[in-house]
Amino acid sequence: MAAGGDNEELKLLGFWASPFVHRAQVALQLKGLTSCEYVEEDLREKSDLLLASNPVHRKVPVLLHAGKPVFESMLIVQYLDEAFPAAGASFLPADPHARAAARFWAAYADDHFFSTWIKAFVGTTEEEKAAANEGAAVALQKMEDALEECSKGKAFFGGDNPGYVDIALGGFVAWIRGYHQVAGVNLLDDARTPLLAAWAERFAALDAAKAAVPDVDRIADFARHDLLPLLQHLHGKADK
Amino acid sequence: MAAGGDNEELKLLGFWASPFVHRAQVALQLKGLTSCEYVEEDLREKSDLLLASNPVHRKVPVLLHAGKPVFESMLIVQYLDEAFPAAGASFLPADPHARAAARFWAAYADDHFFSTWIKAFVGTTEEEKAAANEGAAVALQKMEDALEECSKGKAFFGGDNPGYVDIALGGFVAWIRGYHQVAGVNLLDDARTPLLAAWAERFAALDAAKAAVPDVDRIADFARHDLLPLLQHLHGKADK
Repeated sequence: MAAGGDNEELKLLGFWASPFVHRAQVALQLKGLTSCEYVEEDLREKSDLLLASNPVHRKVPVLLHAGKPVFESMLIVQYLDEAFPAAGASFLPADPHARAAARFWAAYADDHFFSTWIKAFVGTTEEEKAAANEGAAVALQKMEDALEECSKGKAFFGGDNPGYVDIALGGFVAWIRGYHQVAGVNLLDDARTPLLAAWAERFAALDAAKAAVPDVDRIADFARHDLLPLLQHLHGKADK
Repeated sequence: MAAGGDNEELKLLGFWASPFVHRAQVALQLKGLTSCEYVEEDLREKSDLLLASNPVHRKVPVLLHAGKPVFESMLIVQYLDEAFPAAGASFLPADPHARAAARFWAAYADDHFFSTWIKAFVGTTEEEKAAANEGAAVALQKMEDALEECSKGKAFFGGDNPGYVDIALGGFVAWIRGYHQVAGVNLLDDARTPLLAAWAERFAALDAAKAAVPDVDRIADFARHDLLPLLQHLHGKADK
């Protein structure tokens, strides 16, 4: 299938501040699938299309391709590789061992970095928030090692081009920067994770990231005022 | 690479009662990679090879192929598909959309079935255990729907042959049966999930499952006497 062959049949259901949606948007940009229609969801009043497309989790992002839904951000990224093999470089490397490593570290970004860090936002005590920030920083130190191992001295986890792990962790870069503004805690610290701090600069400077990810000021503003009420609303409905 | 081309270079570090190890073992059997060397780990005194191979999580299973480690059970399953494409049928379907669905449901087995059900083993109150069993049963009802959707009326999630989701959920079948013996709770209930109950019979009757998975009686005995002390030991070392 040629790049953008049936580009016009792509639709992404998203929410502008979601780091998981940013992953899908960056991946679409990197593949050159820029005519994908973007539909902003109101997470307090999810559309019938979202509820019908993702009946199990009812979460964004959802990619619709010729009407068929794909959900979960990193499954969307893999889907774009597999459904549009001619569109841009593959996000996953060719070598099976390197593919397994990329999948491992992308999952690590969710299961160890994000799932720890989220408690810095939703925690109820200062101790809990401090522990979450420290746990997140430790997870990023592991990813600093992974960057060295996967990149082999090149710019990205994926080598010369941003790949699967870059997209997975890159989705959080604007949030890490926004959180620095809001809470005064810099998780991409030159002293603690110098390689990752430089990587984040490179990631944020990508045309794909600039096109897909909102300004850090907007994220910081959202984190300050809107995140907790939204999470409480969604949690109250047992439907995040 | 022909089936078993460098079969003799495969080594699996495992623990006989682990459902995650069973997944890797079933996958090796289904691929015909039966000369893979199996090394039983003592989880209280992990081998230097395990600690060196999986320094991040220190968990089994680890597959070593020509000395290079792959860890996480479902990453091993995908690795076998990608490193031995000529060995048996592919675990993942060819269609990108069906691949995304298979990856989604395999992750669902971990994130929604297993992570809920584990509290039935480690929970401290009867209420907590009952809630865990009920949550696990609800997750299996979702997977009953997924079986109908993925199998299109055939024997397995993967169609005529067991595939990625079959291996993911199949790894738990002996434990679900052992738990039935130990706790009197049947999570593969004919009344509640008739398709999945019949699927579990078919899965357990596979030559690959019979070769890879221990007797239910042994699992039940382990669950009764050895599981909690082992988990407490591992948890006490912050190293599960």
